[in-house]
Amino acid sequence: MKAEIIAVGSELLTPDRLDTNSLFLTEELNTIGIEVLRKTVVGDDRDLLAEAFRDALNRVPLIISCGGLGPTEDDLTRETVADLLGRKLRRNDEILRYIEGRFRSLGREMPEVNVRQAMVPEGAEILENSRGTAPGLWLEDGGRALVLLPGPPRELKPLFREQVLPRLERRASGVRMHSRELRVTGLGESHVEQRILPIYKRFPEVKTTILAAPGETQIHLRFWTEDGAHAKKILDEIVQGFEIALADRIFSQDGRALEEVVAEQLTLNNATIAAAESCTGGLLAQRLTSIAGSSSYFLGGVVCYSNELKTAWADVPAEMIAAKGAVSPEVAVALAEGIRRRVGSTLGVGITGIAGPGGGSDEKPVGTVHVAISHAGGIKERGARFPGDRESIRWQASQIALDLVRVHFLYNSQNAAISSAKRG
Amino acid sequence: MKAEIIAVGSELLTPDRLDTNSLFLTEELNTIGIEVLRKTVVGDDRDLLAEAFRDALNRVPLIISCGGLGPTEDDLTRETVADLLGRKLRRNDEILRYIEGRFRSLGREMPEVNVRQAMVPEGAEILENSRGTAPGLWLEDGGRALVLLPGPPRELKPLFREQVLPRLERRASGVRMHSRELRVTGLGESHVEQRILPIYKRFPEVKTTILAAPGETQIHLRFWTEDGAHAKKILDEIVQGFEIALADRIFSQDGRALEEVVAEQLTLNNATIAAAESCTGGLLAQRLTSIAGSSSYFLGGVVCYSNELKTAWADVPAEMIAAKGAVSPEVAVALAEGIRRRVGSTLGVGITGIAGPGGGSDEKPVGTVHVAISHAGGIKERGARFPGDRESIRWQASQIALDLVRVHFLYNSQNAAISSAKRG
Repeated sequence: MKAEIIAVGSELLTPDRLDTNSLFLTEELNTIGIEVLRKTVVGDDRDLLAEAFRDALNRVPLIISCGGLGPTEDDLTRETVADLLGRKLRRNDEILRYIEGRFRSLGREMPEVNVRQAMVPEGAEILENSRGTAPGLWLEDGGRALVLLPGPPRELKPLFREQVLPRLERRASGVRMHSRELRVTGLGESHVEQRILPIYKRFPEVKTTILAAPGETQIHLRFWTEDGAHAKKILDEIVQGFEIALADRIFSQDGRALEEVVAEQLTLNNATIAAAESCTGGLLAQRLTSIAGSSSYFLGGVVCYSNELKTAWADVPAEMIAAKGAVSPEVAVALAEGIRRRVGSTLGVGITGIAGPGGGSDEKPVGTVHVAISHAGGIKERGARFPGDRESIRWQASQIALDLVRVHFLYNSQNAAISSAKRG
Repeated sequence: MKAEIIAVGSELLTPDRLDTNSLFLTEELNTIGIEVLRKTVVGDDRDLLAEAFRDALNRVPLIISCGGLGPTEDDLTRETVADLLGRKLRRNDEILRYIEGRFRSLGREMPEVNVRQAMVPEGAEILENSRGTAPGLWLEDGGRALVLLPGPPRELKPLFREQVLPRLERRASGVRMHSRELRVTGLGESHVEQRILPIYKRFPEVKTTILAAPGETQIHLRFWTEDGAHAKKILDEIVQGFEIALADRIFSQDGRALEEVVAEQLTLNNATIAAAESCTGGLLAQRLTSIAGSSSYFLGGVVCYSNELKTAWADVPAEMIAAKGAVSPEVAVALAEGIRRRVGSTLGVGITGIAGPGGGSDEKPVGTVHVAISHAGGIKERGARFPGDRESIRWQASQIALDLVRVHFLYNSQNAAISSAKRG
């Protein structure tokens, strides 16, 4: 089944407020196999509101609106929908008594305006709202359903879950959305597309979306079908194809961020980490410590912006900085080794680069970054030249650092598995 | 003038992504007197996309779309709009060369798919995109304008400001939105409301909105009028009232973030800063260094998660940690003083606390934070118990730290002004 969401309210057309109810509604609808075809935000204007409902009724069998059920003059959803369906509005005395009771329990008298909230289009079912005065309304018209919900999320959410979802479940077909999400780093959107296009093109029934995010690319697969076993088989097959095409560039298949993946690897391997950052200015430490329980693997880090502090805190030789420059593979490696020795951690990470907008040169333009990791078995260094602004360059540098750690554990544990297989 | 915004992309109809570009666009359009009548989100489907554009063209003289200009098969905005207006798509060799050049400057070859981004409907004006491969497009049709923008906010925003806004300004009417934004820290939404309600109630023609943001409260004032001088007079009067009611809790009147305000103070005062962070894990350093040119005032910082590193890197006496606990006013002060001495900066900041979800106790529950600053003239310490999750607690702790620095300079420079007035 297909649905549209209409968010009603002039405040949603200002720069202050975003319609966030639709995210919640989409998630809930998807789980029972209802796809959202369009979202519309429209102000408190009778003609525009009527047009939005009329158009949607011509397209889909289910419309969910939120907002415009308040007691004031600019709450027009009830009247507009009644007009549109050629129904009369009648006062519902049960609702009126409920609203009066709510006010009485707060020690107040019901203001006259709230009578509007007891007006109900003929033939509408009442959806009780235990958290507010405006009930939701369910209307049927020629096989189509219109569900009118109050706007405040704390009223809308329980009302939807308790009263709308069960009704929809009875109507919805057996079709469900089955989905996968893969996250990739170190390959841009178009390179990912080129590698996986031949695979996903063979499955036109699966909707594949490739999204560019800062420092990573996300691939979403969505398959709408009644047959869950078939969906699993097809999605598994596509993902296996992607795994071959993208190899170790896939870092997550469950929506986790790169720092979460690395946190789990560190924990599973009983490893600890320390960081010496220059251009990222603490971003790597902040990401590593954003995860609950990070004190078990993250021992500490230094942000050594000045050359003196690179020497004082991570033992980078002053002569090396003079000879190679602060932004160089050598200094990245020295930072990684220095901080690891100082802190006594399993892994050390060093980052140096030019985040801009100033500080670039012909030889080392803005965006030049060197990242290194150091461990008992050796070092690994990666250099890059990133496009984008300061924020983007810093983020991408932190992505490279996390990715070096990830790949280290990936092959380390593979090697461990191979050697234990040999021993076995 | 009235406008509609169409956000294109199937990912915006999933529970993963919300269209946030429309907030930015609405704000920018409002400032030049253009009102947004409707926002529509539609997926990557040619028919539905065509319908959305067709309907909007029937309603308003200006349509702004974002998204669907990427290089992949599901990027359909160019083709759909060209079809709808009966225009042919032609390859623009200048754009093609630009895209190839972008890839070349990153040392890569342009993937074949990117040729799509050089396809342009006949009669379209090209809006150069300095941050990405897809240019924006401006089309005119029977007195109506269609503006097609790329989806990524970091490309869309500068492109809109630099190239779309000046073109729209020439077309728009005399009514403008005149606005002010005040940012407040250390006072919650309802306390701000209580203090300023008597002031803004006297000006019903000005729309006042109070918004809660993490660690701060924002007040927006908006006044739609043709009379700029009158708007300025009224808004000045309201802001003066707010300044009396909120005193030094207002940190910004121009939309700047707290770290930007502090960065300017440090620069103006020729001061330097260093940080020793525990629970914020580098967040303070990261915020201080997020600003271009931060190397002139930020010397360095340490993230000392373990107690040993608090002693090794910031000279916090081990006995003090044992006696008072790592999360204590004493340790916050010792961190601030230790890092200032070590680094030789004008100011030192120390942060210690329990960000959770684990690690809390009855005496020191999750959310307990101590922050201190140290300078030649003395120390200042502030303790707090924040509600919220790990991310929110860490953010609020970094806000307090920045606010301590801000207030230090506020009264320091006032004192300097007073003493120079005495001398004068």
